[in-house]
Amino acid sequence: MINMKERIYLDNAATTKLNPEVLAAMMPYLTDYFGNPSSIYSYGRETRMAIEQARKSVAKSVQAHPSEIFFTSGGTESSNTAILSAIRDLGCKRIVSSKIEHHATLHTIQHYHTQGLVELSYVALLSDGHIDLNDLETILSQSKEKCLVTLMHGNNEIGNLLNLKAVAALCEKYGAIFHSDTVQTLGHYPINLKELNIHFITGASHKFHGPKGVGMLYVNQSIKIQPFLHGGAQERNMRSGTENVYGIVGFAKALELAERNYEIDRPNIYSLKKYLQQQLLSHIDGVSFNGDVVDGLYTVLSVNFPLTDKSEMLLFNLDINHICASGGSACSSGADVGSHVIAALYPPEKANFVTVRFSFSKHNTTAEIDQVVSLLKTMI
Amino acid sequence: MINMKERIYLDNAATTKLNPEVLAAMMPYLTDYFGNPSSIYSYGRETRMAIEQARKSVAKSVQAHPSEIFFTSGGTESSNTAILSAIRDLGCKRIVSSKIEHHATLHTIQHYHTQGLVELSYVALLSDGHIDLNDLETILSQSKEKCLVTLMHGNNEIGNLLNLKAVAALCEKYGAIFHSDTVQTLGHYPINLKELNIHFITGASHKFHGPKGVGMLYVNQSIKIQPFLHGGAQERNMRSGTENVYGIVGFAKALELAERNYEIDRPNIYSLKKYLQQQLLSHIDGVSFNGDVVDGLYTVLSVNFPLTDKSEMLLFNLDINHICASGGSACSSGADVGSHVIAALYPPEKANFVTVRFSFSKHNTTAEIDQVVSLLKTMI
Repeated sequence: MINMKERIYLDNAATTKLNPEVLAAMMPYLTDYFGNPSSIYSYGRETRMAIEQARKSVAKSVQAHPSEIFFTSGGTESSNTAILSAIRDLGCKRIVSSKIEHHATLHTIQHYHTQGLVELSYVALLSDGHIDLNDLETILSQSKEKCLVTLMHGNNEIGNLLNLKAVAALCEKYGAIFHSDTVQTLGHYPINLKELNIHFITGASHKFHGPKGVGMLYVNQSIKIQPFLHGGAQERNMRSGTENVYGIVGFAKALELAERNYEIDRPNIYSLKKYLQQQLLSHIDGVSFNGDVVDGLYTVLSVNFPLTDKSEMLLFNLDINHICASGGSACSSGADVGSHVIAALYPPEKANFVTVRFSFSKHNTTAEIDQVVSLLKTMI
Repeated sequence: MINMKERIYLDNAATTKLNPEVLAAMMPYLTDYFGNPSSIYSYGRETRMAIEQARKSVAKSVQAHPSEIFFTSGGTESSNTAILSAIRDLGCKRIVSSKIEHHATLHTIQHYHTQGLVELSYVALLSDGHIDLNDLETILSQSKEKCLVTLMHGNNEIGNLLNLKAVAALCEKYGAIFHSDTVQTLGHYPINLKELNIHFITGASHKFHGPKGVGMLYVNQSIKIQPFLHGGAQERNMRSGTENVYGIVGFAKALELAERNYEIDRPNIYSLKKYLQQQLLSHIDGVSFNGDVVDGLYTVLSVNFPLTDKSEMLLFNLDINHICASGGSACSSGADVGSHVIAALYPPEKANFVTVRFSFSKHNTTAEIDQVVSLLKTMI
């Protein structure tokens, strides 16, 4: 295995390193406190208490009521739950989404569409990848069916941020259910659900230095849904299965730490993104950037490199040089199938470039950026 | 919090203590090796490799092909997946099950029945809680629809073991799909899938000293099913969502260790069960036992104590004395709703007793059993 110290990890939108402080909070539940939270005796009560503490802490962080927070196995399960519930329990007969959603949304809505359960409308995109809110309103106003609007908050590939308030207002106006995949923003931006008329948001702690295998689903208390996973009635009968106690504890701890450091981490990470952009513009002819670079996620920079014989091997060459970056989203196994997001933004004849997504965390440094840029110069 | 050393943990069918050796195997993936397994670069390849190693190891243990093993968030998700797939993808229009299944099965099949997607038949039970195989054959032979038979291998409350071979043979004879919840037996008994004509089995590592939040679904290669969770196409498009890498590594390690120690652990644990039974018979008037005590799970003893003013508080008093045992299954939040398994075995007028399930692991001792029996004498 390669020496860790040699590596430059610029794929933090795919997953992040577990914070040792988070692991420390998880450890008691990986050792002595192993009781089943559904057990009535003291062993179970301790783990039950840990889960309810975690729920309170997460609820506080997003300004929700603890009864609106459900723990799941990850962002994918959370989005699957929200979408199925909207169709099955809330009477949504049309889904309004975009072609640049995460596959956890896109493949799920396409599945239910193929099953004949819902109509599907894709909202138009502006040239910078933003959702065309006028088109969204047109679709909502013309729909005869009750709609589920599912649009992600921060795009994982190009970094664009959705105006949640504006979309929530449109949904309210037209009686639509609103689900937003907030996997890239929870733990990176303060989210105040009191100010938003939103029905579902989702989160995954491994995106903000928490553990893998645990997610969160917020369900607005104004709606009542049935479980996605049936069984022992855990999570107040909303999500069955013995709870991943240490995962849940880790989720809450990671969110707490992320929140505490928003003000410090955000400008630092943004300056790294800005620095990489400037260095690339200065040193590599013909680079361009996808999405809204100025107001998008401070953690993501999506770069198009001119297509040359050498640049086709770019990701491979970055890997050889121990630089971790992504061609598109990492969330498709066998990531070299090409990005559906980039494909949705450019007509095929114009997509004559190689896209690399660099995504940053507080662990990155400008020295790393310098090293990457200097290597990239030799690779194009 | 109570001193751990004072506790007597006799609820190992609910969950088990994580083996430190398993935790040690997980640690690299909770620290340095955090890459997203879907990433193509070296960071991802290491975790991908760990997952595929785990899959091979689990497959070998149950004599399956690695392509038949899928990792999930737990036994509940695994059973939900099997049942939905049988209905949606395999054309099953009738489900044949029993009233003493785990809620992960029972609540799932009831949900799809309520939705009008399937007919439901409950197979008759013999007085010792065994499945009436003659009745099963009658149901299968009379069904005009394709059936899914879902019957658990080891009952988590009374410990009865199903004759998998006999049920598989009946399913084969009548063209039925066979799913067995093997959550209580995987990691406790050798399972040889080569010898069984079975379509789905499920497992959860926290039942055999592995981590919570991770499960396994075996899908026989003769059948093709669609995913339960839609998204990034992980697990060869069968189970989307960023993989719980350390959970998966822990699952495989726990199964490997369990398998290595079957021959040592099984007689030791069985002798504890036998000893508790004998001591209770010698010291407490009117005790009786549920299920097939001789040939049932060596890990479970389900005891009926005579109903008295004092015995009604039995679980509570056990807890006060730092003894962890269960009233029924722990897998229902708020476990004092009464056991559906006991209710299915006795007419209400005959259920004049208090049931306590004691379940054992290799960590228990005869000294603990002595202590429990001596306390129980004062509590009845």
